This record gives sequence, C-alpha cells and structure tokens, in this order.
Amino acid sequence: MEYFPPALENLVEQFARLPGIGSKTAQRLAFFVLNLPEEDARTFAEAILEAKQTVTCCPVCQNLTQGEGPCAICRSVKRDQSTVCVVADPKDVVAMERAREYNGLYHVLHGVISPMNHVGPDDLHISSLVGRVSGGGIQEVIMATNPDTEGEATAMYLSRLLKPFGVKTTRLAYGIPVGGHLEYADDATLMRALEGRREM
Amino acid sequence: MEYFPPALENLVEQFARLPGIGSKTAQRLAFFVLNLPEEDARTFAEAILEAKQTVTCCPVCQNLTQGEGPCAICRSVKRDQSTVCVVADPKDVVAMERAREYNGLYHVLHGVISPMNHVGPDDLHISSLVGRVSGGGIQEVIMATNPDTEGEATAMYLSRLLKPFGVKTTRLAYGIPVGGHLEYADDATLMRALEGRREM
Repeated sequence: MEYFPPALENLVEQFARLPGIGSKTAQRLAFFVLNLPEEDARTFAEAILEAKQTVTCCPVCQNLTQGEGPCAICRSVKRDQSTVCVVADPKDVVAMERAREYNGLYHVLHGVISPMNHVGPDDLHISSLVGRVSGGGIQEVIMATNPDTEGEATAMYLSRLLKPFGVKTTRLAYGIPVGGHLEYADDATLMRALEGRREM
Repeated sequence: MEYFPPALENLVEQFARLPGIGSKTAQRLAFFVLNLPEEDARTFAEAILEAKQTVTCCPVCQNLTQGEGPCAICRSVKRDQSTVCVVADPKDVVAMERAREYNGLYHVLHGVISPMNHVGPDDLHISSLVGRVSGGGIQEVIMATNPDTEGEATAMYLSRLLKPFGVKTTRLAYGIPVGGHLEYADDATLMRALEGRREM
C-alpha cells in the first residue's frame, strides 16, 4: 500500500472507514474516483458537504429534512394529524411510505432502547414524542419498531409511557410475510400468525 | 426513495455510481457519512478533491505519483536502470513491490489491448515505452501483464514492437501458485507448469 501517492493513500483510507468497505474495495473505489472527470469528483465531494450541512431533523417528528421548520409530512394538510407512527430510523419512514397504506404522521426515535449498546431512553427522541402526545390531538400511536427483542422492548416501554395520556397504542401485526412459505416460517412467527388470525 | 431530503438523496445517488455499490449499500454509506462528525465529513470530501487534483502520472513510467517530475521509483539511484517491468495498472506495481524481488523500473500501460472494449495500442502508454527503449540504456523489458487473453496479447504485441531495438523481452513465469493444490489447478496452468519445469 505504501507505493501509492499520499493523497491517493488518504482517499483509500477514507473509503475504508465506511461500513462494509474493506481495504480492497476501498482501493477500487478510490481508483474509480481518481478516474472520474474533475467535474464529477467535485460533485461527489460537494454532495458530501451539502448533505452534512443542510440535512437536519424535523423539529416535530425528528425525521430527516432539509431547510427550516417542520418536514413535508408534518406540514401536509392531507395527513391524518391524529395518528402517529413511531419508527426507529428514517429508513423505516421510507419503507412505510412505500407501502402507500399509512396516511398519518411519524415520529423517528433514531434508535431503540438497547442496554447492550448503552442506549437508554434518554438517548432517543422520546421526550419530544411525549411532548407531542401530551399536547393533545393525537388519538393513536402505532409502534412500528422492528420485531426483534430491542424493538419489542422499546415498543413496550413507550406504550406504558404513553398510556397515561389516554392515547390508544397499537403494534404492527405479526404474521407470515406475503409470498412466504409456511414451511420456512419460524415457530415464533407461526405462533404469532395463529394468535393474530382473522375471520375471512 | 423520494422521502429523503434532496441533499441526502443526491449523496445516495453519488455513492450508487461507485462500482459494486448498489442502492441499499449507497443508502447505508450516505447515512454513515451523515452521522459522521462535521470535521470527518469535510476530511472525506477534501480527500476526494485532493486526490483528484494532486495525483498525476509520472512523466517517465506513467505510474501514479504526486507532485512535479518523475516518481520516487524512477528517481531512485538504487534501482536497476537497465530493466523495465511493464504492467497494465498502478495496482500491479504495488503487487510487484510487495513481492520485494524486483529492483528495476516500471512502465504502466494503464490498460491492455482489448478490441472488445475498443482499446487499441494508441489508447495505452505504449509510445512512451518505445521512447524509453529506443533512448537506450535498457537491456531487458519484463512483460508483467495479467495471464489472461488480453494481457497475453498485449505482451505479445509489445514484445514484437520492442524486439527491433535489441532489448531482451521476457514474460513472467506461469505455473502452479505457491500454496496451491495440484488437484484444483486448471489444465492450462498445469500444462504451463510442466512446460516450464526446472531442474532441482
């Protein structure tokens, strides 16, 4: 590695810091960037700076947004203002929106409670959620954290925290995924799918 | 995807343009950069610009270098000036140097002759190699292009081109790789290994 010019070496190191990028891939990416037209390399560098400098969290729902004030979803008059869907991550908002089924607002926690990783309730955007709920006007809070131990614990914690404000707290349904095979479904999922069975 | 702020969307797109990076990975990388401290994101952006702006090709061997004039290898007085190793890519120089066996100079072609990809001899740094050889002082040119069809054809082409100047042209040895298994060696490699057998 010490045979590359320092600036190239430095670029390789920068790429190697990214998650899931090993030293070989980092080298390949650095060479690719080096072979880009000057214009394109500049665009790339500016995209990094611009994203870092202009992307902020919506003061209401904590989802990622750009510019001042609440995000587009929070501002939208077409949205049902009485329902809030709580997700762990901005990517989950994208997943929910892609389903085109939900028309309420969101609240992004930016993580889940995880004692293993030293993430407690105070490290998440929970107080702002409590603030929104206690402010009134919200009737239902849907817990849409991931169906794993930590997501489950976080949903449970929030549910207990919000109940005193008189809101309905719900959880996404568990069950077999659409297009899935019973044969390959794990026991816990099948059990939950049975529990949650509905009349046809 | 249309639910991310435009600046983030743009960064995801920039990452997705890199080779081997799909849209999911690009998203993950963009989020990682977004979560970096401002300082680190700036360092990353600057590394791209600096590499692009300061890394140039050595006027003698065409290997990547930084700053004016010939590269460190071409300038070195400890190097055997009478031997030139021809490689396709700057990464191959790194591989050769890592072997710590070669002490001559290099010449980087920046590609191989490949009619399929519309790369002809004029698209490579061949005329500068001819210039070096015709200038005198070089006794041996080692063809160290990859042992595939295109690398082979390029080596053959160069060999014929340089022979009239009275230099010895050699090719890296073919054979079974160190630590390899005969069982898994392909026929062509085994055949070459037999052909090239040496007395012990």
